Amino acid sequence: MKGAVLYGERDIRFEDRPDPTITKPTDAILRLSATCICGSDLWPYRGIQAIAQPTPMGHEYCGIVEEVGKEVKSIKRGQFVVGSFATSDNTCAICRHGYQSSCVHREFMSAAQSPYLRVPLADGTLVATSDLPTKDLIPSLLATSDVLGTGWFAADAANVKPGSSVAVVGDGAVGLLGVLSAKQMGAERIIAMSRHASRQKLAREFGATDIVSERGDEGVARIKQLTKGIGADSVLECVGTQESMMQAIQSIRPGGYVGYVGVPHGVSLNLETMFYSHVHLHGGPAPVRRYLPELIKLVLAGKINPGKVFDLILPLDQVAEGYRAMDERRAIKTLLRTNEA
Amino acid sequence: MKGAVLYGERDIRFEDRPDPTITKPTDAILRLSATCICGSDLWPYRGIQAIAQPTPMGHEYCGIVEEVGKEVKSIKRGQFVVGSFATSDNTCAICRHGYQSSCVHREFMSAAQSPYLRVPLADGTLVATSDLPTKDLIPSLLATSDVLGTGWFAADAANVKPGSSVAVVGDGAVGLLGVLSAKQMGAERIIAMSRHASRQKLAREFGATDIVSERGDEGVARIKQLTKGIGADSVLECVGTQESMMQAIQSIRPGGYVGYVGVPHGVSLNLETMFYSHVHLHGGPAPVRRYLPELIKLVLAGKINPGKVFDLILPLDQVAEGYRAMDERRAIKTLLRTNEA
Repeated sequence: MKGAVLYGERDIRFEDRPDPTITKPTDAILRLSATCICGSDLWPYRGIQAIAQPTPMGHEYCGIVEEVGKEVKSIKRGQFVVGSFATSDNTCAICRHGYQSSCVHREFMSAAQSPYLRVPLADGTLVATSDLPTKDLIPSLLATSDVLGTGWFAADAANVKPGSSVAVVGDGAVGLLGVLSAKQMGAERIIAMSRHASRQKLAREFGATDIVSERGDEGVARIKQLTKGIGADSVLECVGTQESMMQAIQSIRPGGYVGYVGVPHGVSLNLETMFYSHVHLHGGPAPVRRYLPELIKLVLAGKINPGKVFDLILPLDQVAEGYRAMDERRAIKTLLRTNEA
Repeated sequence: MKGAVLYGERDIRFEDRPDPTITKPTDAILRLSATCICGSDLWPYRGIQAIAQPTPMGHEYCGIVEEVGKEVKSIKRGQFVVGSFATSDNTCAICRHGYQSSCVHREFMSAAQSPYLRVPLADGTLVATSDLPTKDLIPSLLATSDVLGTGWFAADAANVKPGSSVAVVGDGAVGLLGVLSAKQMGAERIIAMSRHASRQKLAREFGATDIVSERGDEGVARIKQLTKGIGADSVLECVGTQESMMQAIQSIRPGGYVGYVGVPHGVSLNLETMFYSHVHLHGGPAPVRRYLPELIKLVLAGKINPGKVFDLILPLDQVAEGYRAMDERRAIKTLLRTNEA
């Protein structure tokens, strides 16, 4: 088969790769229905995060089970499944606390930007639907695998409740789906921080009640104006830079909650500032497996349509163009069709 | 009257000070039943926190109301009251969220190491008992004003619930009362990190099930041994240094909660470390006013005896010796008797 491999800064190649095979009895092999490019893929693509060697890319996936290892019990050949970007046994003490993305057997997935994929710990990582979904639902089901699960975790970590006031820092796909998640959780006011017309539009579709284009102190002042002068109950940090994190912490009311899911790059926090802000801080790699059953159900019931974040759809062999479009912010998120690869 | 004033490093003087008077119609004047020295007083006493000028010290207090300003409604002359170290109107939007120590009208109290004290915002800061308490209850009631309220907030911020496993970093008075608080909240396992026999003994009296004297990586390893190999559900950070904060974060299980109340001095956190630890982090100046009614009730009912942390009792005019004893760790916490001053 052919798959996407990153060789260095802005050097994605679509090249021959070995077909994946069962290597452990807990593995499954999937024929992917679709895959996509993650905002976090841009860190190594841009050279900000070093890679030691040519690296097969991609960690968001859904598809049909082709084969399972001998110890796989709940996942069957022929089923449609979605899995998390982090594998989990879903039975260890950490998984039982709901932190499957810190499972003692966790591996971060890669090599999903290809037509076939090996998934370790299939029973604990994958969730199957009872029927094969219709084609129109594939983008939204694919979204649950990471980008929606991550936005959902940001909202959950930020303690969004019915009636909450919420601000979202970052208008990438995760931030936009953070807006959708906050709406589903009953937030009353949802402020999207965005300067891009197309993203502002999608934020409004997903439930944003207000758009703030200012940043820094002006952005904080605007958010306070919109939240009774004291700041938001919940802020979702969906970027991962020092600036975005400080924007989030300063926009919160005393005693409010920041949920952060942007992978931090060089972010350092002064604990004294946080102490006097009374902020609650929680985040990390989203425990998507915890949320998958519920998110899949919402998609199948037609209650949410997170697949709208894919504003560029390309055949898998044009993966390099997909990266370029996201790098240049011409696209929010690129879906890659595997059926033509 | 005479009160304690800090002039510089390790230079506490007991000297003439003006009697406090009502300066705003929302003030009250108290005749203190007792006062004490706080662990946080040691930061400026040791010269680690600079002072701009000679500073009247003390912020923990309880006593009899001598006089109230014209706008004070709920607090009456002759009542016994306890107040928080942070004043609050207890009506603003931030107070209504339970963060009275971030009240829009907050002032941090000082000058309580004296026989009389002016308390601003009396209605929102003080809590009165229905009867005058007996003398033996004064130390425990005094403790609710800050040291117990702070330990309680640490446990609450660390999400201690029935059945929780809890570790406490810091064996000062706040840490010891964090142990007591965790016990009251139903924690099953309470691990006190301490190297001092007298403090270990008091920790056990307050409910500690285990003592860990190791620190750093060895301390982390011991805590993991005691918590099913994954770390504690809740850690109370009651010191405020880089080392103690890292001890707390590394001792938590993925998805666990660190409640931090040690005033941070030069503590900086790498967000990437925190991201992959999945820690919940919350802390700050304790919103004691939120907890005061409940804590006073527990003391009056004889259910808790936090006054045991006072292992040195001196007349107020020996305040300088009280500081020395705590600085040299000869005393956990010094109570100052005002009736002889």
